[in-house]
Amino acid sequence: MTFQLSEKTFKVPVDLFVENRQRLLEALKTKVPANSAVLLQGGVEKNRYNTDAADLPFRQESYFFWTFGVNESEFYGVIDVTTGKTTLFAPRLDPSYAIWDGKINDEKYFKEKYAVDEVFFNDTEKTIAEKLKALAVKNVYLLRAENTDSGDVLTEPKFAGSQDFQLNTQLLYLEMAELRVIKTEKEIDVMRYASKIASEAHRAAMKHMKPGLYEYQLESLFRHTSYYHGGCRHLAYTCIAASGCNGSVLHYGHANAPNDKFIKDGDMCLFDMGPEYNCYASDITTSFPSNGKFTEKQKIVYNAVLDANLAVLKAAKPGVRWTDMHILSEKVILEHLKKAGLIVGDIDKAVEARVGAVFMPHGLGHFIGLDVHDCGGYMGDATPRSTLPGLKSLRTTRTLKDRMAITIEPGCYFIDFLLDEALADPVKSAFLVKAEIDKYRGSGGVRIEDDVIIRAAGNENLSDLPRTVEEIENFMASGGQWTEKDIEHRVSEFLSK
Amino acid sequence: MTFQLSEKTFKVPVDLFVENRQRLLEALKTKVPANSAVLLQGGVEKNRYNTDAADLPFRQESYFFWTFGVNESEFYGVIDVTTGKTTLFAPRLDPSYAIWDGKINDEKYFKEKYAVDEVFFNDTEKTIAEKLKALAVKNVYLLRAENTDSGDVLTEPKFAGSQDFQLNTQLLYLEMAELRVIKTEKEIDVMRYASKIASEAHRAAMKHMKPGLYEYQLESLFRHTSYYHGGCRHLAYTCIAASGCNGSVLHYGHANAPNDKFIKDGDMCLFDMGPEYNCYASDITTSFPSNGKFTEKQKIVYNAVLDANLAVLKAAKPGVRWTDMHILSEKVILEHLKKAGLIVGDIDKAVEARVGAVFMPHGLGHFIGLDVHDCGGYMGDATPRSTLPGLKSLRTTRTLKDRMAITIEPGCYFIDFLLDEALADPVKSAFLVKAEIDKYRGSGGVRIEDDVIIRAAGNENLSDLPRTVEEIENFMASGGQWTEKDIEHRVSEFLSK
Repeated sequence: MTFQLSEKTFKVPVDLFVENRQRLLEALKTKVPANSAVLLQGGVEKNRYNTDAADLPFRQESYFFWTFGVNESEFYGVIDVTTGKTTLFAPRLDPSYAIWDGKINDEKYFKEKYAVDEVFFNDTEKTIAEKLKALAVKNVYLLRAENTDSGDVLTEPKFAGSQDFQLNTQLLYLEMAELRVIKTEKEIDVMRYASKIASEAHRAAMKHMKPGLYEYQLESLFRHTSYYHGGCRHLAYTCIAASGCNGSVLHYGHANAPNDKFIKDGDMCLFDMGPEYNCYASDITTSFPSNGKFTEKQKIVYNAVLDANLAVLKAAKPGVRWTDMHILSEKVILEHLKKAGLIVGDIDKAVEARVGAVFMPHGLGHFIGLDVHDCGGYMGDATPRSTLPGLKSLRTTRTLKDRMAITIEPGCYFIDFLLDEALADPVKSAFLVKAEIDKYRGSGGVRIEDDVIIRAAGNENLSDLPRTVEEIENFMASGGQWTEKDIEHRVSEFLSK
Repeated sequence: MTFQLSEKTFKVPVDLFVENRQRLLEALKTKVPANSAVLLQGGVEKNRYNTDAADLPFRQESYFFWTFGVNESEFYGVIDVTTGKTTLFAPRLDPSYAIWDGKINDEKYFKEKYAVDEVFFNDTEKTIAEKLKALAVKNVYLLRAENTDSGDVLTEPKFAGSQDFQLNTQLLYLEMAELRVIKTEKEIDVMRYASKIASEAHRAAMKHMKPGLYEYQLESLFRHTSYYHGGCRHLAYTCIAASGCNGSVLHYGHANAPNDKFIKDGDMCLFDMGPEYNCYASDITTSFPSNGKFTEKQKIVYNAVLDANLAVLKAAKPGVRWTDMHILSEKVILEHLKKAGLIVGDIDKAVEARVGAVFMPHGLGHFIGLDVHDCGGYMGDATPRSTLPGLKSLRTTRTLKDRMAITIEPGCYFIDFLLDEALADPVKSAFLVKAEIDKYRGSGGVRIEDDVIIRAAGNENLSDLPRTVEEIENFMASGGQWTEKDIEHRVSEFLSK
């Protein structure tokens, strides 16, 4: 069976997950002894605090989803590494489920839906151990995964009777995270769709934009377009719909800064928003003037960032280290700022003094996949996390490989806290022209973010947006409505390709 | 200070929470010894699984919010019961917060924003214990709250140095939950706004409805209208946007049944959706034909439910037991079904045989407030939870009091599982006319749900929707666009009242 929310949305083949499991088998085959199996636990739906209502519909845990594509809560899955046999364990639902929640599906339904060999209901607490024994399993590989950005840990599943097996919680994380880093063409197909929907929703927000609205109204339209036209019920992360000075608050939009500013004429907007489809994320940032017309100063900052974005898109290829791309983007931005009179001196020396991080304190980009900040950034040939400004915020330092999915998102911001710090620093301040920089304070920032597939034959940019100053001004000025019919038509055209 | 997302949304006065705290003080004064204080812990923002991205912006825990109105994560609050002095403990943010998340606010800011006497940053793990000692507190009252619907428990806060105090986890839950059951006029003002926004969003969905759409597209429009026009970023619960047979799946819309059906001509729709504003919930259900014109059979079911809704709205008043209202709604529905030939026999006897629960297996309604299924349903003079069909699903059995907020949501559904069970039951089947009932199978169901404030002087219905068959048909047929301007105008008119 396939996943498809409706005839109007992308059809995800179940083979995507069959292929993932085959890749996992292939990776493990030579590394585990005979009689070994993988046991994974899916996510469990949670209520808001102690209530009986959920904040959001259930969303599967990403490692489990990568392996089995299961949308439902409370599943377990087993892969017998010797035979390749796959088994899912489904929760036994109370008969009253039929009244409250709908049809109760049987083993056959799930077997077909997820293309596995066997499905059992998890009827007793010993079911999993018994079935593992029936498979003659002796060694059980469990996933214990630490996130290298948050430090949060996904703990290994506990199951009754586990003491009868040799348990290993080391191997699986390294193998699975590494597999998730390199996307299959089937995964890229889904990500291409998610980015297409994100692009349509960003276009809708740009078309709708006018001074006098509030930031959250554009967030609302973005979410609506993503869901109504793309079937994306979940977002990959909290929407950043910043205008004016808020563009310099890198993670604006959270509960304490909830996109609640009145958008003024002359404000620059920075919208960093992305929905997910069938758990695959998009993550796109547009920057544009609220009134559709760039000022000269806005052009300077915008073109600096756009040039950095394009330079990286061109230079990033298999074999190139991401850290070098980060430095490249800093250089391009600093060169523009020098030309505009905001900084002086030798660009290489400015980079060495970390002046780039004064204007771009975040990392250039991150892996993207089932998580918006996808796993594996500090595995493989990664150099250890830097302690230097900017570089320490990189979510990966690896060399690029074919079919890595990564965001390219240079930015240039005017953050009082960082500018004041740098102006008080004897080394950094030598590069800074305070009087010129001060003219930009309070104007926020610019970020241009694309979702990109690294390909030996030339990168694939999944985003599809007006990007040059001219393109943006023409797009925002062009007549005609950005109607539902228009968007529906474009999505349908995309799907028929 | 007040909470207001923007000039276009409702202004919530900080006095709402000052009054709540005064009510709590009043309630506790005679029940606790000298040197007593209340210590409450706010919610903590959580990431999705082990990632570094949140599923949703932070939403405060309801008991903490009721007391302090604090929107931010990781706060604690203390009320000195002897002096009435209130103290908030805010998390100490890392200076880098200024780069990533925005301005770091000081004690003075929070003191003014939340109208408390003191604010301290929670700098050391002993801060809270030290401040409690400085207040000469000996007895600390902590909240441990079990939800009577889910059974989930909000556990009491742990704090370093707690062994130096006499701790009590019993009293606070009973007192706070009971206070939350009776709404203040300031709380009702917010709830009235939330229901107004819900009503506007339901109207927008009804106007937009046409066969050929998918259910989730109407969910999307509902969410958009609530947020764009009402500033409601969060929903109070998962949207149920059911059409046709799905109307009989009472909690349709969850991850396994994600509002993904194609809406056909002739389908009856059942939309149970409600946003929350500043944490106060709405919960409204509309039922209407997808093509705007009721069939005769749809009219029969609809009018049965509407009459039940109106009968309860009229009969529910202070001193009346909610259980009796549930039975009243069953009777009205059964009388209609009898008139239409679906059942036979004496209605009182049918009720006694629990035939009502075959067609309405859920409870008639529930308290609503900061949680959609609000607390306190089985406290006070509640009779113990019944074990009988229908009645066992009641979320409260209490007698009504002035300023209780409760939903009135009778429904009539054709659920194969229940119909087959009842037809196989010798007692129940005597009342059922199988041939007639079979004609309604697969048609789903009808629910009409209002948010109501019980008032001695006459109930206040917070919902504002076309409800009769005629009203709905006229509303859906009426010309003119349901434009943004129209909705904005109505919300603005509501706010200026």
